[in-house]
Amino acid sequence: MREFRKDVITGRCTIISTDRAKRPQQLFRENLSGEAEPCPFCLGNEHQTPPEVLAYRTPSTQPDAPGWSVRVVPNKYPAVVNDDPGACHSDGLYQSTRAAGVHEVIVETPSHVKLMARLGDQQIAAVLRAYHDRMLELKKDTRWRYVLIYKNQGATAGATLEHAHSQLIALPETPPSVVEELHGARVYFSSMGRCVYCDIVQHELCDRKRLIAESERFIAFCPYASRFPYETWILPKHHAPTFECTDGAECDELSRCLNEILIRLDRALADPSLNYVLHSSPLDEPASIYYHWHFEILPKVTQVAGFEWGSGSFINPVAPEEAARLMREVVL
Amino acid sequence: MREFRKDVITGRCTIISTDRAKRPQQLFRENLSGEAEPCPFCLGNEHQTPPEVLAYRTPSTQPDAPGWSVRVVPNKYPAVVNDDPGACHSDGLYQSTRAAGVHEVIVETPSHVKLMARLGDQQIAAVLRAYHDRMLELKKDTRWRYVLIYKNQGATAGATLEHAHSQLIALPETPPSVVEELHGARVYFSSMGRCVYCDIVQHELCDRKRLIAESERFIAFCPYASRFPYETWILPKHHAPTFECTDGAECDELSRCLNEILIRLDRALADPSLNYVLHSSPLDEPASIYYHWHFEILPKVTQVAGFEWGSGSFINPVAPEEAARLMREVVL
Repeated sequence: MREFRKDVITGRCTIISTDRAKRPQQLFRENLSGEAEPCPFCLGNEHQTPPEVLAYRTPSTQPDAPGWSVRVVPNKYPAVVNDDPGACHSDGLYQSTRAAGVHEVIVETPSHVKLMARLGDQQIAAVLRAYHDRMLELKKDTRWRYVLIYKNQGATAGATLEHAHSQLIALPETPPSVVEELHGARVYFSSMGRCVYCDIVQHELCDRKRLIAESERFIAFCPYASRFPYETWILPKHHAPTFECTDGAECDELSRCLNEILIRLDRALADPSLNYVLHSSPLDEPASIYYHWHFEILPKVTQVAGFEWGSGSFINPVAPEEAARLMREVVL
Repeated sequence: MREFRKDVITGRCTIISTDRAKRPQQLFRENLSGEAEPCPFCLGNEHQTPPEVLAYRTPSTQPDAPGWSVRVVPNKYPAVVNDDPGACHSDGLYQSTRAAGVHEVIVETPSHVKLMARLGDQQIAAVLRAYHDRMLELKKDTRWRYVLIYKNQGATAGATLEHAHSQLIALPETPPSVVEELHGARVYFSSMGRCVYCDIVQHELCDRKRLIAESERFIAFCPYASRFPYETWILPKHHAPTFECTDGAECDELSRCLNEILIRLDRALADPSLNYVLHSSPLDEPASIYYHWHFEILPKVTQVAGFEWGSGSFINPVAPEEAARLMREVVL
């Protein structure tokens, strides 16, 4: 079963995806493999994944064989099914549709490296280019309105395989978190006549209390209302609604910025589990004047608990000013 | 520092509460104490907590001394400060106010018991009465619009002490999750002329696929769009907007229902970490015709990961019909 199910009270959708189901005991803290079983993401084990949809390869090497530096494959246990959304089913009260979408894995290196921060700038630049290239490719398919790119690194961040990788889900609708940001950004633009993200960039550059790093075109800082300790956002300084419009030189510069932040986090927090997410404009609203793509990097150093689930708010025990100071002080 | 900080894009507030702050290493998976240090919630250690605000005691015992069965104390490390909200501060772009509120701990037993399911019906009934009594008391203070009651059981659910306890936060504003539910319920009522929760109760009683347990006045089921595997809701069958209007007989019956669900979860999932939250009408909107109080019980058997943080949606690998079936089959 792979269904989008709508909560009749709030209207939010859950993906019920039971082809991934395991027995209850197996659901418990999924163990990171890599010890007992051969890692499906390592060089030479290409046959353990579905056939690649993209790979950066040395000339004259074969698909699904060694010779690649970054490799994108369909997720073997997809949460969504690459098919048309189909009709909406209703039983009088509840509604569902087929969970249509594309679920892919970006294997970030052929070596069994666990932390993205160990890959180096050039390899991270190739990963970012893979995001870019897959977004452009999936954009051609008009069934998909949104491509969400995210990373789970470490068991407590939800990773089930330790080999460095990120994931991509293309969806027929823009997800609620992005809808909320788009709405807020639109409201801000209506009243102020400016992109709220551009204003945040200027404010953080001026204020510098929450600034961690900047380069010619990018800025990294702990956001003012950080939900998590050491939460870090990376934004382009200039207005840029869509990540997929980023060019090669920008990807190179961004990779250096992202790598620096990951190294600072690893050193400040002793290799924390972390998630990151890439938020960009919906595929069919590319030229937004009010929205600005960005990375949100979310270290998992505290547990999300009852207050957060019950309230929809967060309690953060580390002021972002203090988190930024600690990260600035890391010796590189 | 204890501040409500508003995200300028989405308008959502985070509580930055740094008096609880620890060094980075200590933030990592907070170890459940109880081994090395004496447990502050155990009988005889009453001096280790702030003075009690409520306790059910045997006659002629003294406050903050043995003789209690359930004890409510201010949280020693409160996320909010019991003071007036004060003025809103703005630096031109960002806004904050003092994080005003009340943060209390409900110690559910004088014995060092870890799982609420081991307390028995009568003790759980006393815990529910403590929720009820504190809500009524805090309702008298017009600074608070909402009382959120929640439980963190087990380290991966965010518990920092293992002795069975729950928590309460009184807030000057209704939290976003409840605002979202109230809004959805209002919209449903406008179009259907009925309470959406009452319709869900009738649907689940009729359909029975997701039903786990029912009694004369309560129903427990896995919701149709469950975000988490084995997510379970408990609702009164009759329309009831406010938990604090529940009478003694209802608390007794509810305690049996809650206990049964906790036992079924513990047996089906081998004592999982879990959170629960109690959602009730805001204190100043008690007679709502469209909203219905309920418990949401959220076992933590999978990790919330990048997809969830990036999208605001959930991927659930266990169909609620299957979860309910497994929980019904537990032998009590």
